Amino acid sequence: MSMIITISREFGSGGRELGRRLAEALHIAYYDQEIVKELMERTGFALDYVRQAEERIPVPLLPITTARTFGIGNNSAIEQQLSIYNHESDIIKELAEKSDCVIVGRCADYVLRDMDPVRIFVYADIESKLARCREKGPDAKDMTDRELRQRINSVDKKRSRYYQFYTDNIWGDKENYDICINTSARDIKRLSLLLAELVKGIKS
Amino acid sequence: MSMIITISREFGSGGRELGRRLAEALHIAYYDQEIVKELMERTGFALDYVRQAEERIPVPLLPITTARTFGIGNNSAIEQQLSIYNHESDIIKELAEKSDCVIVGRCADYVLRDMDPVRIFVYADIESKLARCREKGPDAKDMTDRELRQRINSVDKKRSRYYQFYTDNIWGDKENYDICINTSARDIKRLSLLLAELVKGIKS
Repeated sequence: MSMIITISREFGSGGRELGRRLAEALHIAYYDQEIVKELMERTGFALDYVRQAEERIPVPLLPITTARTFGIGNNSAIEQQLSIYNHESDIIKELAEKSDCVIVGRCADYVLRDMDPVRIFVYADIESKLARCREKGPDAKDMTDRELRQRINSVDKKRSRYYQFYTDNIWGDKENYDICINTSARDIKRLSLLLAELVKGIKS
Repeated sequence: MSMIITISREFGSGGRELGRRLAEALHIAYYDQEIVKELMERTGFALDYVRQAEERIPVPLLPITTARTFGIGNNSAIEQQLSIYNHESDIIKELAEKSDCVIVGRCADYVLRDMDPVRIFVYADIESKLARCREKGPDAKDMTDRELRQRINSVDKKRSRYYQFYTDNIWGDKENYDICINTSARDIKRLSLLLAELVKGIKS
């Protein structure tokens, strides 16, 4: 049975680290930079542009299906961003077909829905997220708690809008995931080893 | 380190069975009928009355703190129900202090919040819940899918209101739990063994 794991995560919850460690523990691929690199090659866009497109939605508040129905996609900047999403989805599907893997973000739970992925959502309380950002993020050093809190909320809001735009589902709604795990005050390394066993058991 | 596990669950998700099996796998107590029995003894009420009070809220839509502020609790039927909740909370605390255990429902995650319980929320998609109700519930046999769906929604609505009334938190909101687990199309027996290992790891 194939082992495809998708991780959605709140900013500062340690979801990316958890994904990487989960892949290590399960001896399967962790795709992140490969996706960005391949995306640059296929679209010809520069790194910054591709990275921005990965988290920005072209038309606010309308799901993709609606936008297309009303012909709102007929604009070259919008078309470019939609095209980046489509290329990215293709790349994700090709990688998941090639080997067992963990993919963080990028609506991968939705893109790979026909491959029966184990869909994990990683979240934490705000205190833990502030602490983790301060520990891991070099930018956080110069920010007040209030500024950092605003940044956390703003990144999550973007993720939520991006996800809803492309999937028409609600980001973080537990119905869309198999396991939701609260990392508040937990050690990510340890938790990822435990989750690896759970995922192995579910998939065996 | 003490091992207290609380299970909140959607109706038909297999949460009760999961709780019982989790206790078995971890060789710790599973408290359910003990609570009801002790509650009957302490309050002098009959089984049916106690069972009803366990899922009914005395004053609709006002949280307990508000109801008390406005003196709405000054009514003997209401006082009786509040008193049953208070007795139940005392019993739950005493049992959890006595030994490691699993407790299903009864706002136990909130009642035992100072004892650092592992708080699990169990849920599933509607198709799985319908199937599980048909398999396990003798009442479900004579119901149409529509009736059964209504029953599932109505029980969950009651649980949600009860939880919100006594805790002022939102039932099923993942922030209130450590692990949320989707049992759709999963075997509860198998899943409970896997979760037992996860909980053991978290608590060790």
